[in-house]
Amino acid sequence: MKQSQLFTKTRREAPADEVSKNAILLTRAGFINKELAGVYSLLPLGLRVVDKIKKIVSEEMEALGSVEFLMSTLQNKEIWEKTGRWSDEKVDVWFKSTLKSGSEVGFGWSHEEPITNLMTSHIASYHDLPVYVHQFQNKLRNEVRAKAGILRGREFLMKDMYSFARNEEEHMAFYNKATEAYLNVFRKVGLGDITYVTSASGGFFTDKFSHEFQTLCEAGEDTIYITDENGKVAVNGEVEKKGDPKKAVEVGNIFTFGTEKCEQMGLYFNDEKGNKTPVYLGSYGIGITRLMGVLAEVFGDDKGLVWPEAVAPFKVHLLSLSENSKKLADEAYEKLQAAGVEVLYDDRDARAGEKFADADLIGIPTRVVVGEKALASGMLEVKSRASGETRELPLKELINELA
Amino acid sequence: MKQSQLFTKTRREAPADEVSKNAILLTRAGFINKELAGVYSLLPLGLRVVDKIKKIVSEEMEALGSVEFLMSTLQNKEIWEKTGRWSDEKVDVWFKSTLKSGSEVGFGWSHEEPITNLMTSHIASYHDLPVYVHQFQNKLRNEVRAKAGILRGREFLMKDMYSFARNEEEHMAFYNKATEAYLNVFRKVGLGDITYVTSASGGFFTDKFSHEFQTLCEAGEDTIYITDENGKVAVNGEVEKKGDPKKAVEVGNIFTFGTEKCEQMGLYFNDEKGNKTPVYLGSYGIGITRLMGVLAEVFGDDKGLVWPEAVAPFKVHLLSLSENSKKLADEAYEKLQAAGVEVLYDDRDARAGEKFADADLIGIPTRVVVGEKALASGMLEVKSRASGETRELPLKELINELA
Repeated sequence: MKQSQLFTKTRREAPADEVSKNAILLTRAGFINKELAGVYSLLPLGLRVVDKIKKIVSEEMEALGSVEFLMSTLQNKEIWEKTGRWSDEKVDVWFKSTLKSGSEVGFGWSHEEPITNLMTSHIASYHDLPVYVHQFQNKLRNEVRAKAGILRGREFLMKDMYSFARNEEEHMAFYNKATEAYLNVFRKVGLGDITYVTSASGGFFTDKFSHEFQTLCEAGEDTIYITDENGKVAVNGEVEKKGDPKKAVEVGNIFTFGTEKCEQMGLYFNDEKGNKTPVYLGSYGIGITRLMGVLAEVFGDDKGLVWPEAVAPFKVHLLSLSENSKKLADEAYEKLQAAGVEVLYDDRDARAGEKFADADLIGIPTRVVVGEKALASGMLEVKSRASGETRELPLKELINELA
Repeated sequence: MKQSQLFTKTRREAPADEVSKNAILLTRAGFINKELAGVYSLLPLGLRVVDKIKKIVSEEMEALGSVEFLMSTLQNKEIWEKTGRWSDEKVDVWFKSTLKSGSEVGFGWSHEEPITNLMTSHIASYHDLPVYVHQFQNKLRNEVRAKAGILRGREFLMKDMYSFARNEEEHMAFYNKATEAYLNVFRKVGLGDITYVTSASGGFFTDKFSHEFQTLCEAGEDTIYITDENGKVAVNGEVEKKGDPKKAVEVGNIFTFGTEKCEQMGLYFNDEKGNKTPVYLGSYGIGITRLMGVLAEVFGDDKGLVWPEAVAPFKVHLLSLSENSKKLADEAYEKLQAAGVEVLYDDRDARAGEKFADADLIGIPTRVVVGEKALASGMLEVKSRASGETRELPLKELINELA
């Protein structure tokens, strides 16, 4: 894409109303726009990162045998009343409104109840189980205080998966596979080294059956204590404190609901012997937009964002530095595009210093400069945003390396 | 995908609470699930159709030079007050709720105000124009009476595009190109022959600057009068009546807002002479989920849905009819998949009659049957859902034809 087509402008200054690193960098670089406290729109660069994360998550969920669907935002009061979770005392993040008819309607903050209700039309026998489904759904939560930029907002994109199993054994087999798939996701987006599996903090879940995925990050709300560095296992500080406390952000969680919710919602199946049996429910969440925020927090430096290869909005940021070298830069753009390399091409009529600063701020992994030097030698300056390492390469070799 | 993995069950009977053809067929076939009146979740088959429609629309919007982004559902009261459209008297479809802080918040039913507000941070000079952006956004509208299934709901997916131009001339050049792109979309999804451009019904827009795209359909709320069959031009019955009235559904609309909204929102640019000038705004909508409903209405027959090739959830519905022929069916499934053909494989242990009825109901364009006959002759029975035409082909030839 040509940068002249990308309408977003970068900003030199941090927005006055932001304090968190992720919101400051993502706003300055033109990835997100604040609509109100805790609510952000995704600008083209931000949407591209989110789409890359979604793709990685999709692949892992589909490999588990899960099928994608998409539930509604508007929520039926009657369904949530069956489990008592319509109550604002039980669930304190509901947004609610009123239909023209006068009846109340909710806005989805999670979807265990409607998906369990939906399954009562599709699951009747042990032949119909297990079922695994997932969605990328825009959650709305009336948080008391929205803070930490896109790490905890009132509106965010979540991947939520639900498993319906015949019994605990079948559930746990999937639960363990899902744990591995989650670790794959965090590894693929570049957070593998600093993401730990922790036991969740109680409630009515047992430690064995409920886990969080925590990524080390200064901006985190949680404190974890690492118990096995190689196994990537830690303990949430709410459960137990031992060793050095480390700040972390919860990037995913997996829950065992057991059979209680299905009993409340009337989701039963006939087992092999014809016995009416409640279905065994699990739920599995990853905060997709939060993950973008964590990547900004963890990798961002004093010059701006630094995207891992797999989730970067583009692979190459191509900078044309002078009017003379524009033809060569155009050629490089076309050849890289033709080779299937995703390129953001800074074709703007702007000073070199401005282009360098913008490239550092936006944080695309590989910066390629075409200026007078390239015109003279035929060698392009290729710089890694992450390491700062600079090399000179002819265009052909660059394409071979990237394509 | 194997049908055993697809959790949805078809239904023989129409749901008791539905009267519209689209809702009945899409529910019976397992494409959508009603959550409450006018609110539907997308089940895997429905989501696949929606994704196909989105892809076609994306390609056309990107060819216009538009860039994708995604705005929030939660809406800032202050922004909408600038144009007077926060008022429930001016806009009667708002869902509103209250933040924990006590301040009001809205739920997006359209996005002209926030996108115009956003652009005040990015447009300052004539160099920054024109700008074209689009999104696929889940709209929420508090309709008095939700009816006609997914043709008019309280929650629906919309593609909304916005154009920001220097002046009327630049705007109209894009407006005319957008009209062509819209006709391309309707042609590609299979509705080209019965979709007309009509002048919209007044308000503060002039006929010249505001148009609807209407698809002939018995379930439509509008009446149009065709004035030029070849040019695909018609008049909305609200504007003028002449000739034979025809029922139609509005599948798209394009609006010229002029400069008024940008003046209200403070979106100005410095022109070539340094004069502060208001930006010229246009907006362009296509109801994505509505389009799925129109396709169900227009093409569905007494046996079920009939999907045009381009938007079908799968290209081939492969039916394994007997235990003996399962190995051959498995082989056909693997080879079709390997050739990149999207196949739904009915591998269930069910009666042939049930499989045939389900295939007709789901409406995938090409049905391929593997049974005893295929086992004997090596020829697969290939049937077109739309024409009913049946042929016999060896697997290899079928793959050549479809891949």
